[in-house]
Amino acid sequence: MAMRTTRKANYPQWYQEVVSEADMAENSSSPGCMVIKAWGYGIWERIQRVMDEQIKETGHENYYFPMFIPLSFFQKEADHVEGFAKEMAVVTHSRLVNEDGKLKPSSPLDEPLIVRPTSETIIADSFSKWVKSYRDLPILLNQWANVVRWEMRPRLFLRTREFLWQEGHTVHANAKEAEDETKRMLEVYRDVSENALAMPVLVGKKPEHEKFPGAIDTYCIEAMMQDGKALQAGTSHFLGQNFAKSADIKFVNQNNAQEYAYTSSWGVSTRLIGGVIMCHADDDGMVVPPCIAPYQIVIVPIFKKPEDKEKVSAYIENLQKQLKNQTSFGEKIRVKVDSRDKPSVDKSWEWIRKGAPMVCEIGPRDVDNNGLMLKERIYLNTPEGKKIMNSDEFVANVGKRLEELQHQMYEKAKARLEQNIRTDITSPEDFAAYFANSNEWIEDGKQGKVAFVRGKWCGDTATEEILKSMKITIRCIPFDQSGTTGKCLLTGKEATLDVIYARSY
Amino acid sequence: MAMRTTRKANYPQWYQEVVSEADMAENSSSPGCMVIKAWGYGIWERIQRVMDEQIKETGHENYYFPMFIPLSFFQKEADHVEGFAKEMAVVTHSRLVNEDGKLKPSSPLDEPLIVRPTSETIIADSFSKWVKSYRDLPILLNQWANVVRWEMRPRLFLRTREFLWQEGHTVHANAKEAEDETKRMLEVYRDVSENALAMPVLVGKKPEHEKFPGAIDTYCIEAMMQDGKALQAGTSHFLGQNFAKSADIKFVNQNNAQEYAYTSSWGVSTRLIGGVIMCHADDDGMVVPPCIAPYQIVIVPIFKKPEDKEKVSAYIENLQKQLKNQTSFGEKIRVKVDSRDKPSVDKSWEWIRKGAPMVCEIGPRDVDNNGLMLKERIYLNTPEGKKIMNSDEFVANVGKRLEELQHQMYEKAKARLEQNIRTDITSPEDFAAYFANSNEWIEDGKQGKVAFVRGKWCGDTATEEILKSMKITIRCIPFDQSGTTGKCLLTGKEATLDVIYARSY
Repeated sequence: MAMRTTRKANYPQWYQEVVSEADMAENSSSPGCMVIKAWGYGIWERIQRVMDEQIKETGHENYYFPMFIPLSFFQKEADHVEGFAKEMAVVTHSRLVNEDGKLKPSSPLDEPLIVRPTSETIIADSFSKWVKSYRDLPILLNQWANVVRWEMRPRLFLRTREFLWQEGHTVHANAKEAEDETKRMLEVYRDVSENALAMPVLVGKKPEHEKFPGAIDTYCIEAMMQDGKALQAGTSHFLGQNFAKSADIKFVNQNNAQEYAYTSSWGVSTRLIGGVIMCHADDDGMVVPPCIAPYQIVIVPIFKKPEDKEKVSAYIENLQKQLKNQTSFGEKIRVKVDSRDKPSVDKSWEWIRKGAPMVCEIGPRDVDNNGLMLKERIYLNTPEGKKIMNSDEFVANVGKRLEELQHQMYEKAKARLEQNIRTDITSPEDFAAYFANSNEWIEDGKQGKVAFVRGKWCGDTATEEILKSMKITIRCIPFDQSGTTGKCLLTGKEATLDVIYARSY
Repeated sequence: MAMRTTRKANYPQWYQEVVSEADMAENSSSPGCMVIKAWGYGIWERIQRVMDEQIKETGHENYYFPMFIPLSFFQKEADHVEGFAKEMAVVTHSRLVNEDGKLKPSSPLDEPLIVRPTSETIIADSFSKWVKSYRDLPILLNQWANVVRWEMRPRLFLRTREFLWQEGHTVHANAKEAEDETKRMLEVYRDVSENALAMPVLVGKKPEHEKFPGAIDTYCIEAMMQDGKALQAGTSHFLGQNFAKSADIKFVNQNNAQEYAYTSSWGVSTRLIGGVIMCHADDDGMVVPPCIAPYQIVIVPIFKKPEDKEKVSAYIENLQKQLKNQTSFGEKIRVKVDSRDKPSVDKSWEWIRKGAPMVCEIGPRDVDNNGLMLKERIYLNTPEGKKIMNSDEFVANVGKRLEELQHQMYEKAKARLEQNIRTDITSPEDFAAYFANSNEWIEDGKQGKVAFVRGKWCGDTATEEILKSMKITIRCIPFDQSGTTGKCLLTGKEATLDVIYARSY
């Protein structure tokens, strides 16, 4: 039972419909902000869990810094403020008063405060107090927080004025360590994205004009959505001494000389959930990778006669207990029994729309046969989509099966990515003709009309204008460079850099 | 090695020193806000874990709502806005512009936004969209978030402009269910406070003038600090139909009639960490209850000769592996090996200051004896504070021992609380004489000069002024009422209500 809108018919509308039908999030009365609902937040909690573990395993500790940043802190780093000045929420008063029955701001602040769009400046301020000697380095920290960027065209998960993220911030005694850290965390992002989210990514460096404001180098992971557009799924910045200089983070080095420290920062956000949707969901709704599904298995009891209720419930309770003792992805399996007072067919469809990896329907006849009816979400519309299973067999293999389903999701997305990076476009004319097309849904196993092009770029700043006029972007300069020489796809000039061109979210 | 300031010498200064020596938090350059550092945040993460589990077990799901609340939402509930109007951060602009080299707020908003001091109004707005029929009820949700109240006298953990908390919000079809929910969550708070934080509390209802702005009834848990002052550690509010009426949360009931719903809300915050400090820390620094300690055991290697390093390290690695396989409080034990390049005596003291429940020092001789030197934090200054232990025996019993230490912390705090609730003060004169004293540190096992008084209250509104002038408060009307009649300790009038009087944080 496909949703009202299919991917082919209207991809952006399909996206909104998936979010809404899966009850993951909705627009709020607070302009440009979203309400993240239980299923959406549950996915975020799973992503947090996996990411947090890796962040801690790589030696970082969680801190929490104020969300209000004094305006003057932004005065210090010119590029940084330029990058964010147009989208800042500014707190100017600390009180409301009632004037003639109307509430008005009162008690103006001496210095306006900015609600953090990112925390480099306020954290650098703390670093400047903490760092005295090379013995204090490195400092490796992370925070989970909300941030604000005043988006004018908000879109659930992808672009909202407030969003949730983690931001890592580190200080090092030399450039190499800071750069290594930047790349280490990019690798963590790649790993989590590919292994927990089943979302394959390209890794590389951003071109100069796409860098984080204030960074020396920005590295990124880029994923391909089902319409061939790119989604920047995470970034990691080598900040050099820029913020150290503006915030005065100095230390005495081993030669007893004062030196500015080197910093890095890196982040991923609730935007990842938008990526997961556009990478995996289908015309029946959301599809959640088992590793990050709030519930991996949902059991729906089926009975018409009240006298069957007890029998079915007892059987399910026992099954649930057995399932909860199984592990998958190194953790206990997450099982939900949906015993709401609602028609079972509606309940099953709700969980399919939400993308629960497995739905088990169990009625009196299944109880008699020690069985169940298994629906695997990713095989929903195939002959194998519904299977009558023996319960013991199901329980014994379920942990491994969930991991297999995850792997199959990854392989499918990986195939789409690989099939849709064009490398055979070598002239500006062919390139322009290719991107004259609009993005549309790419059918599984086929090549889309428009997706990624891997080709040469001369690096001239003038190319920025050409990109803008074509509404495309350079997603990254991949780490794996060919070293060959060819024609820049924008200018026709001789060029050696390989880059990924695409439209993007 | 006591800290510079003891509890007896200067309790408030001692508190600041504990926070700073344990490296838990510090004041930020963002006025009135704190930086929560790794050890403080680690304790918060543990509290979150325990609380979140119980919140979910009682049927609630996590959501996330916008932190910006349109000003007009506050216009709707008069009591609510009156309670918070004086301490609100108001966002009025969405941009900064550079004017003559100075950054200034620009692009004023059509409607100012309030940074949530609490989320009843914005969540009620969502409820009004979600609730149509009695079938949609109850809705049981929670969020983990930052909130802002413009405190003028900030104090780390206890009172900062921004703090972290969870806030539960629920909607019900009738008053009884909403009241039951309010009390159920109060019971969760009591349980977590007593069992995870080892902090005994009194439970009861707030008097009318201490209610949450907009509530019908506010219930609370109140803990006693070591200086006899009370700390409100958590509150749970029965909101009746107040917010339902102001936000139009209506549903069709089973008799097919439209009705306003009933709501509840409840929260605990990072303030709990302040409570844990003032309940358990001592003159040597912080003492963390094992259940919420980021690390329950810290191993400090001791070696002077470089050739001993390998031997000691190998032994510790093996010990750590064994310890990590042990469980305590139903979870794997959290062990840290502190292998920083620093004198071991300094490292041990750092962990004592931080209040790690157990510090194990291990040198070459311990390796030879398959032993270790165990320091249990709560017994630091007693003859049993340092024990040479056999490693195998230590590993075998450590899980249980951590639980014992937790229990002993609870018992000690419980004894202090029980010994310091005066019930023998029955006249306003004696009451005034008692509170003419200042609060000071209460030595273990002794009765303090000032702490709690359990006595009668007539309930007159005029008593508010008397309380203010005496700088005391009614902490709660305990659930366990005696039903007797006596003299109000403030007015001398006949009164039946038993209340808890105390100074408070």
